[in-house]
Amino acid sequence: MNKSTSLLVGRINWNSQGLIPAIAQDAQSNKVLMLAWMNADALNASVERGEAVYWSRSRQRLWHKGESSGHTQQIIDIRLDCDADTLLLIVKQNGGIACHTGRESCLYQQFSTQQGDWVSVDPVIKDPKTIYAV
Amino acid sequence: MNKSTSLLVGRINWNSQGLIPAIAQDAQSNKVLMLAWMNADALNASVERGEAVYWSRSRQRLWHKGESSGHTQQIIDIRLDCDADTLLLIVKQNGGIACHTGRESCLYQQFSTQQGDWVSVDPVIKDPKTIYAV
Repeated sequence: MNKSTSLLVGRINWNSQGLIPAIAQDAQSNKVLMLAWMNADALNASVERGEAVYWSRSRQRLWHKGESSGHTQQIIDIRLDCDADTLLLIVKQNGGIACHTGRESCLYQQFSTQQGDWVSVDPVIKDPKTIYAV
Repeated sequence: MNKSTSLLVGRINWNSQGLIPAIAQDAQSNKVLMLAWMNADALNASVERGEAVYWSRSRQRLWHKGESSGHTQQIIDIRLDCDADTLLLIVKQNGGIACHTGRESCLYQQFSTQQGDWVSVDPVIKDPKTIYAV
């Protein structure tokens, strides 16, 4: 580990599981696309690759976003917040779709005070069945 | 608790501490301002008040953002993600400053590959000493 990668991960206030939340925002639409988690290996891999690599908590392994769908996230900028416990990735979202449901953003459910419930308000751009087709 | 507030919090996959990360994004500049945490009481209070109320993990109490600085966040929209474990608040940031350092956004540190370190790149808009002055 050289000085650069040491400070990249060394400045971060990792949580008790060694993770930090990473927000991905689209560089063109400015939409917040998703939130995922990174450990030090994921952050180092993201910087080295220039594409977002997260830590999948459900699968307990590194997750190169888009590895199966092709919807990779090219990193334009990486930001860290004032108390060093949140990351923001400004990304170019390949295919324009971040969500496994085929939507641009994972944050597509809006709380409707009229209906008293969460409602899906953003369009499905691509049939999810075709995203992961072999 | 009526049906509305029941579904507001009942749909959410709260973590083991009963919390969910909440991203705040400025409705005008589209900047991601900060990430904080909410419990069910904070989310209910945010909806009732129409302004962001978080759960302060350090102080272990509800935190009405801007309660001491005046930099409240008027909620324009609330979003929930596909797996119901991240919130996004689209807000009107009172005073244009979300960060206690006097910057618009808390995410002002950029990783510079040239310097091999995190560097503060966004301007201080207001002297933080004057933000919390009595």
